[in-house]
Amino acid sequence: MTASLAHIVHDPVLDRLEAVVGSERFYRTEEGVDSFGDPFWPSDDTTRRAGAVVEPETVEEVQAIVRIAAESGTPVWTFSQGRNNAYGGPGAVVGGSVLLSLRRMNKILDVDPERATALVEPGVRFFDMYDHLREQGLPLWSSAPDLGWGSIVGNALDHGVGYTVHGDHASRMCGLEVVLPDGELLRTGMGAMGRSGAWQAHPRAYGPSADGLFTQSSLGVVTKMGIWLMPEPECYLSGTIAVPRKEDLEPLIDAIRPLMLNGTIQNQPAIGHTLFVASIIDGAPSRAEVYDGPGPVPEEVVLPLAEQLGIGRWNMRFALYGPQGVVRAKMRRVREAVAHIAGVRVAGEEFAGSEVHEKAKDQNAQVQAGIPSLDLMKALDWYSGPGGGHLDFSVVTPLRGASATEVHAMMDREMAGTGIDWDPAMILSGRCMINVAQLYFHPEDNEKARRVFALAPGLVRSARELGYGVYRTHVALMDAAAAAYDFNDHAQLRLNERLKDALDPAGVLHPGKQGVWPARYRDALAGA
Amino acid sequence: MTASLAHIVHDPVLDRLEAVVGSERFYRTEEGVDSFGDPFWPSDDTTRRAGAVVEPETVEEVQAIVRIAAESGTPVWTFSQGRNNAYGGPGAVVGGSVLLSLRRMNKILDVDPERATALVEPGVRFFDMYDHLREQGLPLWSSAPDLGWGSIVGNALDHGVGYTVHGDHASRMCGLEVVLPDGELLRTGMGAMGRSGAWQAHPRAYGPSADGLFTQSSLGVVTKMGIWLMPEPECYLSGTIAVPRKEDLEPLIDAIRPLMLNGTIQNQPAIGHTLFVASIIDGAPSRAEVYDGPGPVPEEVVLPLAEQLGIGRWNMRFALYGPQGVVRAKMRRVREAVAHIAGVRVAGEEFAGSEVHEKAKDQNAQVQAGIPSLDLMKALDWYSGPGGGHLDFSVVTPLRGASATEVHAMMDREMAGTGIDWDPAMILSGRCMINVAQLYFHPEDNEKARRVFALAPGLVRSARELGYGVYRTHVALMDAAAAAYDFNDHAQLRLNERLKDALDPAGVLHPGKQGVWPARYRDALAGA
Repeated sequence: MTASLAHIVHDPVLDRLEAVVGSERFYRTEEGVDSFGDPFWPSDDTTRRAGAVVEPETVEEVQAIVRIAAESGTPVWTFSQGRNNAYGGPGAVVGGSVLLSLRRMNKILDVDPERATALVEPGVRFFDMYDHLREQGLPLWSSAPDLGWGSIVGNALDHGVGYTVHGDHASRMCGLEVVLPDGELLRTGMGAMGRSGAWQAHPRAYGPSADGLFTQSSLGVVTKMGIWLMPEPECYLSGTIAVPRKEDLEPLIDAIRPLMLNGTIQNQPAIGHTLFVASIIDGAPSRAEVYDGPGPVPEEVVLPLAEQLGIGRWNMRFALYGPQGVVRAKMRRVREAVAHIAGVRVAGEEFAGSEVHEKAKDQNAQVQAGIPSLDLMKALDWYSGPGGGHLDFSVVTPLRGASATEVHAMMDREMAGTGIDWDPAMILSGRCMINVAQLYFHPEDNEKARRVFALAPGLVRSARELGYGVYRTHVALMDAAAAAYDFNDHAQLRLNERLKDALDPAGVLHPGKQGVWPARYRDALAGA
Repeated sequence: MTASLAHIVHDPVLDRLEAVVGSERFYRTEEGVDSFGDPFWPSDDTTRRAGAVVEPETVEEVQAIVRIAAESGTPVWTFSQGRNNAYGGPGAVVGGSVLLSLRRMNKILDVDPERATALVEPGVRFFDMYDHLREQGLPLWSSAPDLGWGSIVGNALDHGVGYTVHGDHASRMCGLEVVLPDGELLRTGMGAMGRSGAWQAHPRAYGPSADGLFTQSSLGVVTKMGIWLMPEPECYLSGTIAVPRKEDLEPLIDAIRPLMLNGTIQNQPAIGHTLFVASIIDGAPSRAEVYDGPGPVPEEVVLPLAEQLGIGRWNMRFALYGPQGVVRAKMRRVREAVAHIAGVRVAGEEFAGSEVHEKAKDQNAQVQAGIPSLDLMKALDWYSGPGGGHLDFSVVTPLRGASATEVHAMMDREMAGTGIDWDPAMILSGRCMINVAQLYFHPEDNEKARRVFALAPGLVRSARELGYGVYRTHVALMDAAAAAYDFNDHAQLRLNERLKDALDPAGVLHPGKQGVWPARYRDALAGA
């Protein structure tokens, strides 16, 4: 559902919004607005173009903006950095929305070295936190995802992941400050006390915990977040496990599961396809050199390439942290656990925690120490040429080899004959895994981009047939993703709608986010 | 706020409720109802007596009960086992409520040995899960609190704690089934899919997470809960650290904090006062033998007793789990970390994980392996004679020695001259600690019990002055505890009220729970 774009330059509501922040932080020309667009959306489709962009710097400005929106019935869409391009970047579901950019609210308000916590504004990027900790000389690591340009807050709210012991970013949140849809200011956790001595230390207050309500949410604008940091370990081992055959994936995952459950591996390992790893190796042959046909590179091309580059058909990275003796004892366990897979290669690079910043050179070693980079952007160019795009389709399954192959077989069936290139990656946690299928295209190829977006809802339905749902999606696919959560006539979605109507009766904040529509949009849909 | 009790034997609403479950699972006589009372509440105060007790066995019965309550405006108060007597047992805030006992919904619906998860009904006790795992011969441990007779579900919903790696019970929840106040059935997390393959594996669905809303909550009745279990470790060390002087508490806590943050200690350690430890030692002198005056036992009596019994002024227990080499390397780190405290004694008993059930004899070793018991009941009798009672006052602070002594000094000031005996204990997690002050009295001493309950709101206010709040309370203290969360004119409480009114417009489910009153009670209060 997208509203038609009414791009309005002279509008009293926009004038009021502009007055809150001043003209230098307000964008209403097409050119100004389009620099905050969804970068991979077909460029000839302007239906999702925003109406304006407003960039507050203070909580009070956010409150004023939200109140004007509620009074005037203006749809608002918030992003913190809006860098998650595979899921829509800063783009709204509803065309013509006012984009509430929090990029200028970028202060690191506190870092407590004693208890390894921080309090940040939503515009703080993974790069900013890393730089701050280094500049202050603090022996603390902050978990980061594969691309470091995003917002710490936005990523956690979108259930994003990183690769240290705090890789499940939503669960390292500890206390929020939220502007509710009526402009009221809420603090959760121990921040619910006016004078709190434990806001970032303890994640709950007294009574129901609302924090989860503000993730993947249209119920508020998060303006501060407490997060947990990781003390720099004495020793850090960045490990890799490469297995040679396609069918080695199942035994690999099943061998790793006990090590995740018993805490041998404390971070969130990732498993990548040959091509994904190849795509970021300097000097590797280009996609066109490897295979110049459309669609996925055939298996008979993949295996020789893996051999040529000395990598596996599947490549897992993982990390161990602790005193050196503990790390080495754990590494022995990892080696033992996968030794039964013929041709397996296990390697590890060991660092003193304090030396990792200078000595860790490859992306795996860096990201598992929370060192942010943009190295993985190379993959997009490798697949589709400079400026390449992708759409991520991310299914949650139990951490079980058979579940991964089940999802991959489903993807093979669905993608056959589409001519669209994709590769699978997996991010592992203790009991579940995120199966990411990256669909590659070039955003200048509008026809192909349209086909990619058009086939994604079918992928959601096919995953649902297997009993699996997606954990986050591109904004254009939110209704489809939400529809799969269908227990008791979509009881979860209906609860979300009730909460939405209770807290946002004007129905202006993030309409359609994660498939949750305010009453006035639902009524319009029902009447249509 | 308590309603006056109107104990009604002939009542059409009660007749309807009785018809749902049958007369053998419905209690409406005074005698029947009083067996589900708050055991430590002054026995001559009947204002909190329940109106009836109903014991459903199925989800459908719970739905029918909740619907009748909503239609008839009958207040309902749910408990799972109702064994947490220090916080009110099964007792409701509002006298005359119908108690919804979930004790008969006691099925362990699933245990998945591969991914170490379970799905349980709310009547399942820690004892039941332990017995089930042993009977099935499964190498899984389930975290338990100090007393094993409680409900796994009820304890997690009340933010209760245990002492294994899953000691923060609310964070080991993975997916709920909830009957909403209108009788609708919700499943959260991946259970929000009608056919879900990952319900207990992944804790979130798509969109806002409502799970936290159903903890310490009046927004629903939880009828199923997914929980995470811990694989039996190869090796388990149950450790103790005893320090000789009162002032050793601060350096002890500050020395432990880095070990918690870096994962050396993975469980939730506890620190107890000399007397608390003495009270459960077989053959230790009785309270009367130690000191026969009123109020806390004086320091000059405590220290010789500690020496006599060979225990510390403060006694910490902790656990290490893993391969033997890892456990031993960790134990060396623990010893090094506290070696600077003069007179410290560190001890540890090592078990093969599989042998712990037969070989662990003391309560510390058992509870840190998830083995439930009722051993700590002895403490109540030691302090107040057979059938002794207690009220727990539990303040959350950062994990920092100075915070603990700050709270203890506040308690000393507040309790001075009251003649009421109390002792402090602390439960440690990575960044915060729960400072439990146990206030002892005998429930047959109505005058003293009344004084204990009367002084508790003052303790809440004094803690708030320090910037600290309580994490859970006795039902009679819920308004006082909630009032301390006062940021922005009690924004958190006001949000809770909005959510309450939206989901429970009839205002019947758990009125007053955690200080959240439905509109009709708030209106009555405002009019009073």
